[in-house]
Amino acid sequence: MGWRTLTEAASTVNGLRYLLAPMPNDPLRIEMTRGALVESVHHVAVAIVDAKNHLVAAAGDPDSVTWWRSAAKPFQALPLLQDGAAEHFAFSDEELALACASHSSEPCHLEVVSRLMARLGFSDEDLSCGVHTPLSPAVALAVARGEAVPSARWSNCSGKHAGMLALARHHEWPTRGYNAAGHPVQDRILAEVARWSGVPASQVAQSVDGCTAVCFGLPLRAMALAYARLGASGEAEPRRIVAAMSAHPLLVAGSGRLCTDLMFAWPGQVISKVGAEGIYCAALPALALGVALKVEDGETRAAGVALLEVLERLLARVAPGQGPDFRAAELARHGRQALFNTRGTATGEVRVAGSLRFLAA
Amino acid sequence: MGWRTLTEAASTVNGLRYLLAPMPNDPLRIEMTRGALVESVHHVAVAIVDAKNHLVAAAGDPDSVTWWRSAAKPFQALPLLQDGAAEHFAFSDEELALACASHSSEPCHLEVVSRLMARLGFSDEDLSCGVHTPLSPAVALAVARGEAVPSARWSNCSGKHAGMLALARHHEWPTRGYNAAGHPVQDRILAEVARWSGVPASQVAQSVDGCTAVCFGLPLRAMALAYARLGASGEAEPRRIVAAMSAHPLLVAGSGRLCTDLMFAWPGQVISKVGAEGIYCAALPALALGVALKVEDGETRAAGVALLEVLERLLARVAPGQGPDFRAAELARHGRQALFNTRGTATGEVRVAGSLRFLAA
Repeated sequence: MGWRTLTEAASTVNGLRYLLAPMPNDPLRIEMTRGALVESVHHVAVAIVDAKNHLVAAAGDPDSVTWWRSAAKPFQALPLLQDGAAEHFAFSDEELALACASHSSEPCHLEVVSRLMARLGFSDEDLSCGVHTPLSPAVALAVARGEAVPSARWSNCSGKHAGMLALARHHEWPTRGYNAAGHPVQDRILAEVARWSGVPASQVAQSVDGCTAVCFGLPLRAMALAYARLGASGEAEPRRIVAAMSAHPLLVAGSGRLCTDLMFAWPGQVISKVGAEGIYCAALPALALGVALKVEDGETRAAGVALLEVLERLLARVAPGQGPDFRAAELARHGRQALFNTRGTATGEVRVAGSLRFLAA
Repeated sequence: MGWRTLTEAASTVNGLRYLLAPMPNDPLRIEMTRGALVESVHHVAVAIVDAKNHLVAAAGDPDSVTWWRSAAKPFQALPLLQDGAAEHFAFSDEELALACASHSSEPCHLEVVSRLMARLGFSDEDLSCGVHTPLSPAVALAVARGEAVPSARWSNCSGKHAGMLALARHHEWPTRGYNAAGHPVQDRILAEVARWSGVPASQVAQSVDGCTAVCFGLPLRAMALAYARLGASGEAEPRRIVAAMSAHPLLVAGSGRLCTDLMFAWPGQVISKVGAEGIYCAALPALALGVALKVEDGETRAAGVALLEVLERLLARVAPGQGPDFRAAELARHGRQALFNTRGTATGEVRVAGSLRFLAA
């Protein structure tokens, strides 16, 4: 009987055993250990691109095509600025940050979206997003206890949807059906996604997101390019998006969440945006770099760990001495760490294996 | 820029692109689609073994070593019968089923464990398992609402722990520390795990489980052998375990859970037991077969889908016409199915790709 750990078994593909020894470019993976064995493995594909579309580093296949999910939000918000809707409706930075958010339904988030909706004259009935368990454990508990009854504005995507409604109103497009493919709002956003990602609109895949809005499918490399360009752009509109997200990290995600903690830990130097099913994107404006990663199995528990690891390795290589303090508690709790059971006994760890491949300049 | 879906990218290993075309033995995987793309992929390793230790079918690497987690419970309960503790303490079939359970903390589970603990003279303080959110959504909601305060007996593993305490009491071993490696209870269980799995005790890996008890590490193939032998055994003790689990599917898991629904759907013909981090095991007593599978990334959402798929393919091959109705609602809801978003719109599906390799007899 053969004796291989799952780590080694991960090198067994299609029933054939190649590569039992780690390769120089062994795939990046987040490993959950228990005792002496790797219990579960998450494979991660990464693309790091500069604003001129040079691939700087990668793991797995940077050309993997997947859904951008909520990591598309800054680009879904950009038309608000470019088309004059944000100016016309006097969007504050808080409201722009919330339009880019996957928020936790905390009071601060509900207050900002409610203020925006009231000013625009929209109600919950106008929002096409559905109700889900709030991402904030505290808010979710309050809902479970019947202390609050969530409505559409409680959706983590409500800021995005309010922004889409504002765009429709500004252009005097119908607000009804604003979320669906083919509506002028979605066509306008598709054009923006194409512009920043470098993928022709006709080649951007489209589907329905968890919140009913259009979801965009792109290679990771194109997502990273869009973020690199967003951060490095000299145009007023992307600069306002970056400034709004940088100024209001709590509104972009929520208490204790990595997007929020990372932007607080390295103010003005990083924009980060999570997406469902293991997507994470980031822009490093001063370095004109964009990062996009996907956990192949969609596991969120691995995506944040992977983002921190990739950023730390990237900065060590391209900007030594720069970056947040990855060992500070606020960040470390999202990264590599010990695992404990229901009685607080250490059972294993979340660790990182494999390589981020740096490409010759 | 290359255009590959993640399905194809999954064939990109260690940065080299082999096998872009599916192989005859392409790996078994559970795919979560959205629109036209596979969004997330779960790789599954499977071992199907008969009671004489012939490998009947496999996917991925059947010799992968991983933790048995809660799928070890029937073997952790066996010493109760073999050493006379079950007879001495007059264990009912309900109590034996609960000793093999990862239960949902529903009233029926709490009633059985409470009755057993009271008869044995043990209290919550004697149990080493910690408190966690109940697996039953309804019970978890009641706890969140403060309508119930969970204690150690609410742990999904409380039946196993009560059984371990009973074994210690029966042998007049100390009950304190019964959960830890090196305690006579755990040594006794280790010997039983070794006997059924065919792995020498000295080669069985040990670590700490989520509930603080010893967790055993084995190749999937050895887990499958243990289940095949358990189901096919003519000895009174394993027959009693199989009978108790078969007679009380609700006690082994809980309302709406796959273990329970599968044993109700094919009464007396299947014993199934889930474990944390993507483990699933099953015995088919009449066919003298055992099944063990592991989702490489530990995702529970894929483990049940994989078990149903593997059982359906196995039965079609080795026992056509036998088996439960996999299309009946009670089972189908755990398997391949459409996915919907927060507004009930179909967004994709959970589907199965790849092969289960059948080996020549």
